[in-house]
Amino acid sequence: MAEGDRTMLSGSADPMNLNGDHENRAKPVTGSLPMNGGNDTYSYSKNSSYQKESADLEKGKIIEEIEQKLDMKKLSSFSNTICLADLGCSTGPNTFMIIQDILEAMQRKHRSQLSQSCPKADQQYSDDHQIPEFQVFFNDLEANDFNTLFTSLPQDRKYFAAGVPGSFHHRLFPKSSIHFVHTSSSLHWISKSPEVLQNKDSPAWNKGRIHYTSAPDKVVDAYASQFAEDMKNFLNVRAKELVHGGMMVMILSGIPKGMPYSEIPAGMLYNCISSSLMDMAKEGIIEESEVDSFNLPYYAASLEEMEEIVKKNGYFKIEKMESSNPAAWLKGRPVDIPTLVKHVRAAVEGMFAKHFGIEVMDEMFGRVTDKLLDISDLVNSQRDEKSQLLAVLKRK
Amino acid sequence: MAEGDRTMLSGSADPMNLNGDHENRAKPVTGSLPMNGGNDTYSYSKNSSYQKESADLEKGKIIEEIEQKLDMKKLSSFSNTICLADLGCSTGPNTFMIIQDILEAMQRKHRSQLSQSCPKADQQYSDDHQIPEFQVFFNDLEANDFNTLFTSLPQDRKYFAAGVPGSFHHRLFPKSSIHFVHTSSSLHWISKSPEVLQNKDSPAWNKGRIHYTSAPDKVVDAYASQFAEDMKNFLNVRAKELVHGGMMVMILSGIPKGMPYSEIPAGMLYNCISSSLMDMAKEGIIEESEVDSFNLPYYAASLEEMEEIVKKNGYFKIEKMESSNPAAWLKGRPVDIPTLVKHVRAAVEGMFAKHFGIEVMDEMFGRVTDKLLDISDLVNSQRDEKSQLLAVLKRK
Repeated sequence: MAEGDRTMLSGSADPMNLNGDHENRAKPVTGSLPMNGGNDTYSYSKNSSYQKESADLEKGKIIEEIEQKLDMKKLSSFSNTICLADLGCSTGPNTFMIIQDILEAMQRKHRSQLSQSCPKADQQYSDDHQIPEFQVFFNDLEANDFNTLFTSLPQDRKYFAAGVPGSFHHRLFPKSSIHFVHTSSSLHWISKSPEVLQNKDSPAWNKGRIHYTSAPDKVVDAYASQFAEDMKNFLNVRAKELVHGGMMVMILSGIPKGMPYSEIPAGMLYNCISSSLMDMAKEGIIEESEVDSFNLPYYAASLEEMEEIVKKNGYFKIEKMESSNPAAWLKGRPVDIPTLVKHVRAAVEGMFAKHFGIEVMDEMFGRVTDKLLDISDLVNSQRDEKSQLLAVLKRK
Repeated sequence: MAEGDRTMLSGSADPMNLNGDHENRAKPVTGSLPMNGGNDTYSYSKNSSYQKESADLEKGKIIEEIEQKLDMKKLSSFSNTICLADLGCSTGPNTFMIIQDILEAMQRKHRSQLSQSCPKADQQYSDDHQIPEFQVFFNDLEANDFNTLFTSLPQDRKYFAAGVPGSFHHRLFPKSSIHFVHTSSSLHWISKSPEVLQNKDSPAWNKGRIHYTSAPDKVVDAYASQFAEDMKNFLNVRAKELVHGGMMVMILSGIPKGMPYSEIPAGMLYNCISSSLMDMAKEGIIEESEVDSFNLPYYAASLEEMEEIVKKNGYFKIEKMESSNPAAWLKGRPVDIPTLVKHVRAAVEGMFAKHFGIEVMDEMFGRVTDKLLDISDLVNSQRDEKSQLLAVLKRK
């Protein structure tokens, strides 16, 4: 997930908030923070199996795209090293599993291309010089827990591993140095929440909410503009880094065109967070202005929006773009709401804790769980919407 | 610093040592562990200025070698990305400073080579296509505190940064992918302490000592053999990774040929550690067998030993090899012993704490400081021995 600008607005005479006057204090724009590190109860490494299950639904399609569209012979003709990057890798283990699958598919494709061009290739494949070496770059924000990532690396890996700290909204790699990019559950994190959401004089002022779910159109538009801007930058920098013919696979949250986000389980959850926080504000546990000034930097685009952004950018050919139901792996079983909330907590707690204080996190997520359990029928009835996007692009 | 095999000897019926019978328990061979992480009192990041000062004595020589011997034009003709690796980088900040100096020297050399071959090159140098991009790989053991390293990366760096976890005694990078290797204060850490040192029936049994300082020749020989074996492996794997014409700079602890290690301040310090631990064993704070079974995996070679190993390996041309006084930067001022011990503690505490227990570290380093202060005249009289090696090699 991506790090945003954490610009402090000027004019705070009381940055430490010693007066307790939240209305007048400087309000940072919310930028993304990494997933929870370590291996504890609320860590991402222990609470990311939902992301894996949803991403796994796309795995077969990714492998098919590699088999059908990736020219490994061409890629390996430029360099004896094939470089992969996983952007927004967090702490593992999901990243290790998908990278392994992708790498094996690339090796199979390479071998099959060689055997087509030379019938004796299978024998020759054991010859050192024919087999490219693989290097995998695991990227996430500088504050990501790379220590956990590195100590969890598979011991039997068949690639050279490296960690790359930094926001994927900026350049991360040298020019034309990457052959395959994978990014999953990351690109819906925008670089920062739009500043206009905090402007009381704007129709996009997002009072009493932590997201655009159930918000006026102007709020949704502000989020959509930031996403489009971020994606434009993302495609521009990746276009520099990917070799011609290189592939990029993106899995991210989406939404059917025109559907309000409140009709998606994730939107219901954000509404529960907003109302839990507002309840806590009414009870004096936090300040209402703190809710007004927090906006989760998360946007789910429609397939049509994504397609337009990619086409306008022009550097990539769309090999595949489709939306699907990320809960299909449940096969009709109801959502386990407490587990779902734990997964969300592992991903977003850092941002909420930084803004509201770590000490109210148990309270907040407890209330959210209760509220979501109260509407579990509604959550389950909307569970099967196509709210996951897969895009497979090829660098022209 | 390098990770060693931490083989548990078989036959322990009481691995948790519930009987308190230290004689019969499994004894792990001591392998290297990373420097102290974080930014606290005993962290390496706060206690590595001595290493920097000593390494800085070599900086001018390294830059001169780059200016005179590195063919940047040739290196950049193969690839538009120039890759540097710092092996044993720890948590910074020393690694960032020397990498910056090396990178700038390489850029100057490249520019000057271009202007020689084309008088208009200075103007053209602003043209994007002429300037190679730089990628720097910071390597250390998997257990190194990469989180501290990554959050300390210079914001204004002019290179793409990556962290590479793993022991430099093994392959870390794809074939022919690295143009420059730097390693400082790392290669004297051998991959493991020789097993024979724990064998009571061997003349190399290192009873009552934690190092080969003041030990019988057989003990010194066992260390020397392990160092030679490690260096052979190190040169073999680096030879695969470095491009032809690529440069490798190594700064490590050394000793004048034939000099006993007890005549070097570091040796005096190891003797103080041995005797402090033996005192603590006599007082019942630790077990004597724990001292017998611990051997610091640290070896200082003579220039002649290094030269022989490199020549025997055959993959590298020796551009420069010399020994110098690592305390020259003190310019005659006496060694500040408590600060010296803090520096040593930041580097080696992990290994001692793992073996003897973190709870006795304050006691141990306190006693070591007192003992070393008692012989401060001796320490200062031997301070200026040439106990630092610099080797500049070029891949044939």
